[in-house]
Amino acid sequence: MVRLRRKLGRSQEMKLASLKGGRDGRLVVVSKELTLAVGVPEIASTLQQALDSWVEIAPRLEHEARLLERGQAEGALPFRAADCAAPLPRAYQWADGSAYLAHMERVRNARGAEMPASAFTEPLLYQGGSDNFLGPTDPVLLADESWGIDFESEIGVITDDVPMGVSARDAVGHIKLLVLLNDVSLRNLIPAELAKGFGFFQSKVWTSFSPVAVTPGELGPAWDGSSIGLPLSTTLNGVPFGHPNAACDMAFGFPELIAHAAKTRPLGAGTIIGAGTVANRDESVGSSCIAERRAVEMIAHGEAKTRFLKFGDRVRIEMLDGRGRSVFGAIDQVIERHVMEL
Amino acid sequence: MVRLRRKLGRSQEMKLASLKGGRDGRLVVVSKELTLAVGVPEIASTLQQALDSWVEIAPRLEHEARLLERGQAEGALPFRAADCAAPLPRAYQWADGSAYLAHMERVRNARGAEMPASAFTEPLLYQGGSDNFLGPTDPVLLADESWGIDFESEIGVITDDVPMGVSARDAVGHIKLLVLLNDVSLRNLIPAELAKGFGFFQSKVWTSFSPVAVTPGELGPAWDGSSIGLPLSTTLNGVPFGHPNAACDMAFGFPELIAHAAKTRPLGAGTIIGAGTVANRDESVGSSCIAERRAVEMIAHGEAKTRFLKFGDRVRIEMLDGRGRSVFGAIDQVIERHVMEL
Repeated sequence: MVRLRRKLGRSQEMKLASLKGGRDGRLVVVSKELTLAVGVPEIASTLQQALDSWVEIAPRLEHEARLLERGQAEGALPFRAADCAAPLPRAYQWADGSAYLAHMERVRNARGAEMPASAFTEPLLYQGGSDNFLGPTDPVLLADESWGIDFESEIGVITDDVPMGVSARDAVGHIKLLVLLNDVSLRNLIPAELAKGFGFFQSKVWTSFSPVAVTPGELGPAWDGSSIGLPLSTTLNGVPFGHPNAACDMAFGFPELIAHAAKTRPLGAGTIIGAGTVANRDESVGSSCIAERRAVEMIAHGEAKTRFLKFGDRVRIEMLDGRGRSVFGAIDQVIERHVMEL
Repeated sequence: MVRLRRKLGRSQEMKLASLKGGRDGRLVVVSKELTLAVGVPEIASTLQQALDSWVEIAPRLEHEARLLERGQAEGALPFRAADCAAPLPRAYQWADGSAYLAHMERVRNARGAEMPASAFTEPLLYQGGSDNFLGPTDPVLLADESWGIDFESEIGVITDDVPMGVSARDAVGHIKLLVLLNDVSLRNLIPAELAKGFGFFQSKVWTSFSPVAVTPGELGPAWDGSSIGLPLSTTLNGVPFGHPNAACDMAFGFPELIAHAAKTRPLGAGTIIGAGTVANRDESVGSSCIAERRAVEMIAHGEAKTRFLKFGDRVRIEMLDGRGRSVFGAIDQVIERHVMEL
């Protein structure tokens, strides 16, 4: 019993995905190499169901993950990212931070805005829409290129129930899974929307997720309890765009972001918290969104050269471990024109 | 078939609630007089499940509602607000508008702030947290009175799936249910939070809901397709605080709020949209939040006299129809101190 608890707290290792089907997908356990998946309907049908009773369900999922690695899981099938919905196809909470100050500084510098005084002392979070998430290869449907379509390559965590007023120290234990995500943003709608004072609404649209969510233990030493010490790679139409390290130049780690979010209220199981566009001070590693690259261009050359996304553009976001293996699988999606239903 | 469709579109009549139990409650159909309730597990276990397949499930729920009115529903039991969770105890989206400009004008006038230029031409919405809603008689647990605890008495709608880019004209058909709600706000945390530019987070905490959600048809002529033409009554510690009419001085109706929310993205089934603190230009009807009354006091007397909420204060929000019957049942809750778990 004591051994099981220590194991659960310290080194639980598994990868989970939700195959497309219904509104909440179908939970599968995925092999470390992302080659095989096995459904677990007798344990939990959906990832939300697993998160709702994580203490009881996680050990059973991990047992299945071990069987899968040993080639002993009954009914295992090939795993393909294209079959995946987001790990949580819809969620009860999605809040995104802005923990990489190099990103905030560049973007604000370029438009002549000051950093908020509190930026260095407390995290900045916004409440996002969580009713319709995209899977890793789903097209990003939008009606108008002139909105200034941009990607934001990020890492995020999924929590169990977090009590109101939790400390950062205790928050780390509530991080049950990690994901990659693309927080699609409409740059040309942001200024007018933020000027109204209530934050983003129309300017933050789709959020897309990596094929699998992984437990902290699955990351090994790359997870330090605060972030993931690996580069997050983005390519645009096959051309490398950026590969900043997600643990480098992060002003606030995930435990601080969770504690900030839970200061005045509890967070429900399945809450997803992002850390914002990953950015390093070292400009040579490139950027995780177009707006930031445009800001760097403007500072260096007086004008932005890189255009925002057009229909047909393809964005790929992936994180490789020290041995070059994809940890989460890739987000790999095309921007497409949405035609209104009549 | 044609008759059924016309009926569904025009005059569906029922009241629904979720009794406490599990994370998503247990769906019941409630009688018009709010005296009886009957579980419908063979139709749908939860309200979210009903909204996910509304076209198929709603007629069956309505049939049960008719049996209940006739005294023919098997297993009907007394209905009590204290047994209720929120109609959706957790939801995939909660967005709140600010459609009553008298409220916005008073509050901004009092703090010397201008109305945003767009206030008169397009709706203002913020994305709220939807992972933990309160039932009508649940205590409002908060850690600190100095945060400036306030209520906001509102009406809201619950939609089915709304397509991206929907027009206001088509949006009205996606309004499946209406509710009352209390959008608890921490006034003293708002200025610093809004100054950071990303909208509310820590300053918008609990949202509490009326015992029942009702279909538009249930409201009869009080529903004009845009709002509810009845006064929304709030009492504080038993003393009348305000009773503005919810259809009066509303700059944007629910169809406009939904169209604004869906301009760049679809809305998932079970999306809840609020219209903001109900307020009329006529000051004699009182207010639906303390901040607004304080603003009126400040303008009239140079200082605000009404204090924000303290632990032990009780807020009651209710809407009576033309014959004095409670339409939604009452939100009736006490502010209580949250003691941190150690």
